[in-house]
Amino acid sequence: MPKASQRSLDMPASPIRKLMPFAYAAKARGVQIYHLNIGQPDLAAPPEFWAGIEGAMGRIVEYTDSAGIPSLRTASRELYAAKGIELEEGQLMVTTAGSEALLFALMSCCNPGDEVIVPEPFYANYLGFAVPAGVKLVAITTWIEDNYALPSAAEFALKITDRTKAILICNPSNPTGTVYDKAQIEALGAIAKERDLFLIADEVYREFNYTTSSIPSVLQLPGMEQNAIMVDSVSKRYSLCGARVGYLCSRNAEVMAGALKFGQARLSPPLLEQLGVESATKTPQAYFDNMREEYRARKDFLVKALSGINGVVCPRIDGAFYAMVRLPIDDCDKFCQWLLESFEFQGSTVMLAPGTGFYATAGLGKDEVRIAYVLKKENLEKAMVCLREALAVYPGRTCEQAVHA
Amino acid sequence: MPKASQRSLDMPASPIRKLMPFAYAAKARGVQIYHLNIGQPDLAAPPEFWAGIEGAMGRIVEYTDSAGIPSLRTASRELYAAKGIELEEGQLMVTTAGSEALLFALMSCCNPGDEVIVPEPFYANYLGFAVPAGVKLVAITTWIEDNYALPSAAEFALKITDRTKAILICNPSNPTGTVYDKAQIEALGAIAKERDLFLIADEVYREFNYTTSSIPSVLQLPGMEQNAIMVDSVSKRYSLCGARVGYLCSRNAEVMAGALKFGQARLSPPLLEQLGVESATKTPQAYFDNMREEYRARKDFLVKALSGINGVVCPRIDGAFYAMVRLPIDDCDKFCQWLLESFEFQGSTVMLAPGTGFYATAGLGKDEVRIAYVLKKENLEKAMVCLREALAVYPGRTCEQAVHA
Repeated sequence: MPKASQRSLDMPASPIRKLMPFAYAAKARGVQIYHLNIGQPDLAAPPEFWAGIEGAMGRIVEYTDSAGIPSLRTASRELYAAKGIELEEGQLMVTTAGSEALLFALMSCCNPGDEVIVPEPFYANYLGFAVPAGVKLVAITTWIEDNYALPSAAEFALKITDRTKAILICNPSNPTGTVYDKAQIEALGAIAKERDLFLIADEVYREFNYTTSSIPSVLQLPGMEQNAIMVDSVSKRYSLCGARVGYLCSRNAEVMAGALKFGQARLSPPLLEQLGVESATKTPQAYFDNMREEYRARKDFLVKALSGINGVVCPRIDGAFYAMVRLPIDDCDKFCQWLLESFEFQGSTVMLAPGTGFYATAGLGKDEVRIAYVLKKENLEKAMVCLREALAVYPGRTCEQAVHA
Repeated sequence: MPKASQRSLDMPASPIRKLMPFAYAAKARGVQIYHLNIGQPDLAAPPEFWAGIEGAMGRIVEYTDSAGIPSLRTASRELYAAKGIELEEGQLMVTTAGSEALLFALMSCCNPGDEVIVPEPFYANYLGFAVPAGVKLVAITTWIEDNYALPSAAEFALKITDRTKAILICNPSNPTGTVYDKAQIEALGAIAKERDLFLIADEVYREFNYTTSSIPSVLQLPGMEQNAIMVDSVSKRYSLCGARVGYLCSRNAEVMAGALKFGQARLSPPLLEQLGVESATKTPQAYFDNMREEYRARKDFLVKALSGINGVVCPRIDGAFYAMVRLPIDDCDKFCQWLLESFEFQGSTVMLAPGTGFYATAGLGKDEVRIAYVLKKENLEKAMVCLREALAVYPGRTCEQAVHA
């Protein structure tokens, strides 16, 4: 029997999805599950998206340009320009979601064996792209006690070797909810420029900003035209996770030429969703304002609810819609599985993403989980009650029973 | 300035798409282009597809299972079962089109540096997946004089080294239109089994079969359960190229587990198109029968038209909707670009895919082009007139002026 490849064995199972078989089993037993494991908003996409789909009904379902439908590219560049990010034709490519944009960025910047420095905890799937790309993620640990603050540029500099090709950040951060400010991004940019590295920024949560400052894009750093690469997606912004439409943007022509060739091999992103997204570029600002305020309210509720549970540590959250939380537990992988297999409260349980999958450093994150606060407040409320009750009875709990609020 | 990766430089530009900038320029000059360069049918998708999209209007646009929507997987397995291919749950994964299925197959079977034996000319994008996967394609040349017949199993055996992990075929073949019969597939299977190799078959053109025998799937080979991997797609079968829905199927649990992890990293295929395709699984057989007869008529017309042009060699075509044709020209890359840049006949020109991109062996295919006969007969007729007129005046022609029919 022929053996599967070593790299397929090396691939990490997604901490966000690997427990799905246990979730299906729980559902089959009739247990209701509050899904806090995945950044899947429960909000409706803007009606403009559906107008675009409606307008496409019955047409020939063609391949599009490998870089995306030209009119979508134009409309998207206009949106970025309105945010102060000027891009010329050829500097923006539509991808099959942010996932593909990240993979293309790593493939275009790095050869197998190259290193990319990334603050940890990081979005777990970065590992899932690093393995197929043959790239080594070199992590700099950030800490819940500091609200997962970005390490200093000097700390990044210490990690640079002759195999380092890029620094990768996510701003606002999935999974920590940290927002990096202009001075921090500029300092990182200076290091990247000085050491001739790419600075890749995953900016898909740009609109989910609970601070009073705007989120700086790496594409706005002066003098960084050849170094800065932005990864973006419509998944969160328009509540279109299933649409699989994203962007890779850079002014580095070589990187964009490489990405386009990877894109030609896979032919094109999905047609209908591209047409929907093109129409959705006309979404009024009120949609985003309402969404942000909805998530701010959920975030405020979550932080308060968590702080009311004995032994739980929740950091300050400034952006995105995740919290990387410390729980009074022995082992997050065991706990998350136990929640699905052995626990229910009033017919319900909660699904969380084990923290370990968000770290490259072995042993870190064992008492952490990522919570995606993507549910309506009433469901979030029930989920928090579930979590509190679960922590009170979990056999591997490491502190006294949770205090009932 | 940081350098893009060597592999992005190594990536081949798609011969099917690399001339698009010249096509845009021609269109901007007002020239009409007959697109024979790309397998993009002009036929409508089945109404059942649109019913599925209609039914999805306004819903939450969620991520789906990484392996595809469970009910789509079930409906698809039922369709395969009806074709004599029995698959259990977990042996079929929905992918973001056949492109992704091919990439996942290579990544799951091969480590970087491994070799895959493939008859050439082959679908150009196999190279586009081999480069990111770090896999070396080892080609066995097939010849237009033999209608690109599959080489004997003994010829395959000669190419096997200790780095060989798989044999890759496309049946019916893109770009040659060759159909491999049961005895040929069995002989290949025997070699794969004996030498412990994977046998990966791209079977996306299964319905486009102009012979009286049925197309055998590698999944039907007895004793090959652990070796056989099938790549499939709805792109051609339902005229849904832009939908980006395909399948990876195998009974090798290790390969499927690896593919699922690659799939988890990219989260999910597009939601709406999956819903459309699930509904399209109810398409009546008449749709496929009509489609096959339409393409058979186009094929018959094409073969006749080409045989009427002086110096053109067209092989026998048994399946798919391509012809790999020899033209009386010096250099297909020059010719295909010249068609777009410097030629028009009655306001029109024709876009072809240069043959060189379909070979791994340097120097082969220089006087060949791939023609996708995906246009209505009246347009195909005009395209053939265009081609004939072009060959008559092309400065690099290698025989006397084409004879006017």
